[in-house]
Amino acid sequence: MEILDALKWRYATKKYDPSKKVDQELVDKIVEATRLAPTSSGLQPFEVFVITNQELKNKIVTSAHGQEIVADCSHLLVFAAWDNYTAERIDQIYALTTTGREQPADRYQAYTDRLKSMYLDRPAEVNSAHTARQAYIAFAFAMAEAASLKVDSTPMEGFINEEVDELLHLKEKGLKSVTLLPIGYRDEANDWLVNLKKVRNPKEKFVTEIA
Amino acid sequence: MEILDALKWRYATKKYDPSKKVDQELVDKIVEATRLAPTSSGLQPFEVFVITNQELKNKIVTSAHGQEIVADCSHLLVFAAWDNYTAERIDQIYALTTTGREQPADRYQAYTDRLKSMYLDRPAEVNSAHTARQAYIAFAFAMAEAASLKVDSTPMEGFINEEVDELLHLKEKGLKSVTLLPIGYRDEANDWLVNLKKVRNPKEKFVTEIA
Repeated sequence: MEILDALKWRYATKKYDPSKKVDQELVDKIVEATRLAPTSSGLQPFEVFVITNQELKNKIVTSAHGQEIVADCSHLLVFAAWDNYTAERIDQIYALTTTGREQPADRYQAYTDRLKSMYLDRPAEVNSAHTARQAYIAFAFAMAEAASLKVDSTPMEGFINEEVDELLHLKEKGLKSVTLLPIGYRDEANDWLVNLKKVRNPKEKFVTEIA
Repeated sequence: MEILDALKWRYATKKYDPSKKVDQELVDKIVEATRLAPTSSGLQPFEVFVITNQELKNKIVTSAHGQEIVADCSHLLVFAAWDNYTAERIDQIYALTTTGREQPADRYQAYTDRLKSMYLDRPAEVNSAHTARQAYIAFAFAMAEAASLKVDSTPMEGFINEEVDELLHLKEKGLKSVTLLPIGYRDEANDWLVNLKKVRNPKEKFVTEIA
């Protein structure tokens, strides 16, 4: 589906049909869209968790203020961002880039030195806010790709991050949960939002052209 | 173009051909993708500026550490988020939703009361960090839509936000610049990045499946 049509088609699904599962091939495409997302300085400071384990999904419902979509969805994606930038993490990504591009070992030395001087002295919460924003780009790509495959999704910020961090052992991995994205197939008969009009600010209030 | 193919095709363009302009029809589609982006509680707490004025673009180059892509691109998109949530802003969006969905005037009263109780007592910087994250979703949709139209773009965070805010009179509008997105057409012969391999964390390091 053309992207704009997909974006018009999508809506924040409020009721999933738990009997309908998303094919692995489609899940892989959605995850691949997140992996391709651009990030600041190419640092890719986040990971994605794909949860089908029902017991774990049920626990996350509790951390998500009882929202049953987390239990009923086919797959729950959790976007988790680095809790901080570290020299090791920056070096690791650029080692990958150096190898992937078949470049001399010190090709990115000056660049990574500059990144380290910018990031390593900043408070962890400033860096963590920055890594979270990168995860939002991938989060958006996942929604767009899902919609293009006619897979429903529900962007969610409303959950107790610390509880999800604990359930997924994120702290030990130096990660913090940022957003949830249940994906699956709508239960049209029981979804209160499905037939409500998508309302957006009209273009004239939203866009300013300066020519 | 299928979204995944578009995401593989895109790269952060480093050199634009200033003689090639993006057709208005395509710009409109890219802007429409941003307008369709979902936002937390549907508040749509951001606006988009589309700048073709060369003098203004040149000034923003200075605020963007001399990056000439801002001058050479066809259109410069600036994503600007609300500097805070206010009762008026929340009411205004929900008035639109109420009218758009032809619902009774008080349909969202309890909901907007809850939003106000959540947001209005929080520090402006907490709310502003939240509105900025919403703008990132739209920012990502713009990149995806542009790529699907074979329009190049360059996601940019590296600029002096306060200077861009001043150039666009954002403070008076209660907005803060979040990201820049030059769009246009690559100058392939002079772009150092165009032929370098896109490197991403391999899937096994990026994704954790919990079944």
